[in-house]
Amino acid sequence: MAVADEHYQDDNKELQPLLVFGPPLIFEVFESRNSHKYLFLKAFSIQLPLLEFLTTQNVDPSSIRTILCNQLQPITANVIRLLPSLALIVTTTIGNDHIDLPECNRRGVQVVNVGSQSTEDVADMAVGLLIDVLYRISAADRYVRKWVPSKPWNLPPGSKLGGKRVGIVGLGRIGGEVAKRLEAFNCRIMYHSRHKKPFVSYTFYSNILELASNSDVLVLCCSLTDETRHMINREVMLALGKEGVIVNVGRGALIDENALVQCLMKGEIRGAGLDVFENEPEVPKELITLDNVVLSPHAAALTSDYFTDTFSFLSNIKDIFQQECSKLR
Amino acid sequence: MAVADEHYQDDNKELQPLLVFGPPLIFEVFESRNSHKYLFLKAFSIQLPLLEFLTTQNVDPSSIRTILCNQLQPITANVIRLLPSLALIVTTTIGNDHIDLPECNRRGVQVVNVGSQSTEDVADMAVGLLIDVLYRISAADRYVRKWVPSKPWNLPPGSKLGGKRVGIVGLGRIGGEVAKRLEAFNCRIMYHSRHKKPFVSYTFYSNILELASNSDVLVLCCSLTDETRHMINREVMLALGKEGVIVNVGRGALIDENALVQCLMKGEIRGAGLDVFENEPEVPKELITLDNVVLSPHAAALTSDYFTDTFSFLSNIKDIFQQECSKLR
Repeated sequence: MAVADEHYQDDNKELQPLLVFGPPLIFEVFESRNSHKYLFLKAFSIQLPLLEFLTTQNVDPSSIRTILCNQLQPITANVIRLLPSLALIVTTTIGNDHIDLPECNRRGVQVVNVGSQSTEDVADMAVGLLIDVLYRISAADRYVRKWVPSKPWNLPPGSKLGGKRVGIVGLGRIGGEVAKRLEAFNCRIMYHSRHKKPFVSYTFYSNILELASNSDVLVLCCSLTDETRHMINREVMLALGKEGVIVNVGRGALIDENALVQCLMKGEIRGAGLDVFENEPEVPKELITLDNVVLSPHAAALTSDYFTDTFSFLSNIKDIFQQECSKLR
Repeated sequence: MAVADEHYQDDNKELQPLLVFGPPLIFEVFESRNSHKYLFLKAFSIQLPLLEFLTTQNVDPSSIRTILCNQLQPITANVIRLLPSLALIVTTTIGNDHIDLPECNRRGVQVVNVGSQSTEDVADMAVGLLIDVLYRISAADRYVRKWVPSKPWNLPPGSKLGGKRVGIVGLGRIGGEVAKRLEAFNCRIMYHSRHKKPFVSYTFYSNILELASNSDVLVLCCSLTDETRHMINREVMLALGKEGVIVNVGRGALIDENALVQCLMKGEIRGAGLDVFENEPEVPKELITLDNVVLSPHAAALTSDYFTDTFSFLSNIKDIFQQECSKLR
């Protein structure tokens, strides 16, 4: 299949329309510096159905070839079907679960993640959350900030990271980076994923319940799919046990959040470090008062380097488009 | 030199006196389980000069052969001189800077650290504090716990750990463990210590100012001595620079704390992760409101494993004593 790119040959004369759903965090700066290249169609700023929105902008749906999005707004089959010339979706996330990939495949729409340069940052964050929960750093920081001489230190002892059996759920790029880091802390790594990985020496568990039973820590790094939604349910948490810790840098809905809240409140697991939640940006209010959780607002990847890298990547969407087109020829 | 140990040959009949300065955190349990072995002389519970205290206990100073202490009370030359039979000081810390080591050497008093099993925990904590400062985990946790829908995320972007040039100050056991861990995060390790270490490939800087100029991060892991007191002064912090981060798991007084507070408040360095302070348990009140610091109450080593290990170690002080004596024969 060949995607015509003649539209871009005269982009000095005509602005390339770019349909933006869910603005990337750097969008404001990106827009101001690229207004000579793109006609920004900001679907996130108006609460209208897509076709009505495009009508208000005097834009023909068939002129749209590129979408820019993040995880905040799903790119459904319905959206894709409304844009007959759509050829490329650029998402500023690592995951793709907000995009209807089967429909993209069927239509030959390419999907490019700009978030992948933050793989290492997310892995760092996972390790940071784990150390924080085990050695209760954020809780200690809260204690120090409220310290009064008469109030004794009342946090329970921490738990050492060395020697812990860490079950990685989803040994993809992020999971692999987490494993590499935790090996340096003398952890024993095991994993669960759809298939056993060749060339990987870590113990594989095809069953998540078995992984949990044999782990002290679960680090969730996989994508959200119909199969993985709520895979970490109450049964898995009880198998992990009272000293168990869960770190989630994947997607909130990998965990049955209600069950997690119950287990954390009752001490049925030791603690959790969470960068993601089921209904972001909402965080279950029961967690707010607990000392055995560390809460982060899906902020793992938000480093200044991420902003710089994403910015430079987005500035070259035209090149990405042409590369993707050439792959299809 | 031979230290007589006949005192211990009949310890089934007679309790071994144990002079305790600065109770280890597990002291209460330790005491209750070992009252059949030791006569605990709790110098920490009474505000009397040592000799007066021993008089109130009907104990002859020359019967004291062992001291148990932590960092909260210094074991000065004066204390050592008052105890003519002193042969062993057991400290439940990693550092020794609260003990007059030259006087111990002169007198042939052995010093044993029970804290060394927490070397790895302290290294883990150093990495945890560093990740926390760079990816501002504790600050984000505070933000989430106070989140209201109308209040935007206002923390500055984080800074990625990968690629950072990390200067380890004091490449002893803890420093070595920190270096090993940070290599797995793709950091470039360099170090400063009294002498260049043979068999170590990291770049060595004999001058702390040069190390700071060439580092993005300083991790302080050395002991406190007359040479290292306030070695991290304003000049060193300015050499580290605006993006620089300091992590201190050594001793508070390694840093000129007033200068640190100024640099953090003015943004002359990026941030700091501090497990130790100059006047513990006091923390400079200016730091309490800053988002670019993570504050921990000298709690790195306080894991439940530490308690168990120290407990088991202390229960065998008699064996330690005999081992130390046999080394001297």
